[in-house]
Amino acid sequence: MAVYTQLSAETLAALIAHYDVGDLVSAKGIAEGVSNSNWLIETSGSAANGNRFILTMYERRIDIADLPFFLGLLDHLSAHGAPVPRTIHDRGGAAWRDLDGKAVALIEFLPGVSVDHPTPQQARNVGAVLARMHLAAQDFSARRANDLGPDVSAKVLADCGAEALAAINPALPAAIGEAQHVAKEWPQDLPRSIIHSDLFPDNVLMLGDTVSGLIDFYFACHDAMAYDLAVTHAAWSFADNGRKFRAEIGEALVAGYESVRTLSDAECSALPLLAQGAAMRFVSSRAQDWIETPADALVTRKDPMDFMHRFAFYKRQGATAFG
Amino acid sequence: MAVYTQLSAETLAALIAHYDVGDLVSAKGIAEGVSNSNWLIETSGSAANGNRFILTMYERRIDIADLPFFLGLLDHLSAHGAPVPRTIHDRGGAAWRDLDGKAVALIEFLPGVSVDHPTPQQARNVGAVLARMHLAAQDFSARRANDLGPDVSAKVLADCGAEALAAINPALPAAIGEAQHVAKEWPQDLPRSIIHSDLFPDNVLMLGDTVSGLIDFYFACHDAMAYDLAVTHAAWSFADNGRKFRAEIGEALVAGYESVRTLSDAECSALPLLAQGAAMRFVSSRAQDWIETPADALVTRKDPMDFMHRFAFYKRQGATAFG
Repeated sequence: MAVYTQLSAETLAALIAHYDVGDLVSAKGIAEGVSNSNWLIETSGSAANGNRFILTMYERRIDIADLPFFLGLLDHLSAHGAPVPRTIHDRGGAAWRDLDGKAVALIEFLPGVSVDHPTPQQARNVGAVLARMHLAAQDFSARRANDLGPDVSAKVLADCGAEALAAINPALPAAIGEAQHVAKEWPQDLPRSIIHSDLFPDNVLMLGDTVSGLIDFYFACHDAMAYDLAVTHAAWSFADNGRKFRAEIGEALVAGYESVRTLSDAECSALPLLAQGAAMRFVSSRAQDWIETPADALVTRKDPMDFMHRFAFYKRQGATAFG
Repeated sequence: MAVYTQLSAETLAALIAHYDVGDLVSAKGIAEGVSNSNWLIETSGSAANGNRFILTMYERRIDIADLPFFLGLLDHLSAHGAPVPRTIHDRGGAAWRDLDGKAVALIEFLPGVSVDHPTPQQARNVGAVLARMHLAAQDFSARRANDLGPDVSAKVLADCGAEALAAINPALPAAIGEAQHVAKEWPQDLPRSIIHSDLFPDNVLMLGDTVSGLIDFYFACHDAMAYDLAVTHAAWSFADNGRKFRAEIGEALVAGYESVRTLSDAECSALPLLAQGAAMRFVSSRAQDWIETPADALVTRKDPMDFMHRFAFYKRQGATAFG
């Protein structure tokens, strides 16, 4: 959530001149994205053809070799009617450019705001859009493996070690064994597509009840569609830092998803374990970040316990968590 | 340069509903302003009546008692044709509202970008707009004293102490005596108006050579107009971290200013000392920030030496610095 790089107006204007979007009119660094710098750009182009854009500079965590996948995916989904921002290509057709040694991409600006306390109708619409996205992505030919699967969560937690985890919270060392168990039981043959795999409310733009945009596809990968629904369920259906399950939200998400794509029996039976794996994916990354971030750093550390509570809920409730 | 507070979409939408500007369509936290949180807001209002705004939340440094002055000044200057964003008043006529115990104001969005390397034509236009702003402010009735005048610079540097200053740079302790000398010689009866007093390039929005906006008036106060020109001269006319004077920029600034408002003989003779005082104002605040900011903090400390170089230049050159 920061702008890591300063770009002068002169540099930005020269960059924008490589695109057929008019002249630079405004550029504001925006506090969005975990590992990139982002600017909200306005140009003198016509509103009908687009005169607002997000300029993203890839700072870290993102492997440049993955950019054809990420940016091509946006174009594919957008062309297939999913509410996803398309990539603006430069006059030479390139989806990204090099700027002072860093890759930058110009991406369509979509209206909408991210809700903090979704209503059931909003959750239903998010579920439906997620399913439409899965269907739209099925004929996208590029592939990217999920590098944050259950084996990785288990390994990250084991590498953190029980002592460091206990220093965060006494209940956290139990995650090591739980994550190993989840990884061991993980289903291998569920139907796949490209999944978002990080569809938290901040990555969904809404106008009232309507989903106007899915954004931040930088964890997208080829994996089980039901796992994406489980991630979204874990990300949307809880209040009170994961302590309180909002059943009406979880039900609406699944119902919305199934209004577009029916889950198979295998997917339905797998959901409780997939949701436990989703919870562990965020327990592990948050625990790792917590340990690696000095307590007095100016960034807010996210508490891994928020997802331990969700894990415990999914383990305890089993299939009843999904109605 | 940060967003200090997180506001949910629901909170923002409820806030925007108090204004006659349409519904909330988009809100992006922007990395702008030194001591406030800012969002770029888009609404469903018509473009002609305005559908983009800056929402500012006053976090610290700003005394709420000064808000009638700051926000009233924007309205006054805007109504008098200066390129300054006006304040949007709520349906009850209030220029700011309370949100969770903090003051927030909705301010007109102005297009334009801040240049890093101004051209003489840009500098000329900035000088002219500064003079127009001074004239437009002369019948603004509210008053705010300059709390960062030469006495304050001298006291801040003395309070830092020679030892702490020397730890930043061996040349810096000399600033203590220099600032006292400047304060002692400070002219008291130059013509006054409301001055911006912080008109760095980041606080000027430009579209090509045209000044589209002066922003960030949170240091504005009632003081000598020629001092504002001196601050602007010090802020715009140097490259290479204050080591290289760009004579063509300084000349263009003063010529642009005088194309609108002729400087009196007293103002012309005072400029070299006023510019030394302007340099000391930033030497002192930067030195204080440097000493108060841990070396390993994630914020970039600004080097007070950038303005010691300017101070030395103005002292050495005298009147010749101003052509």
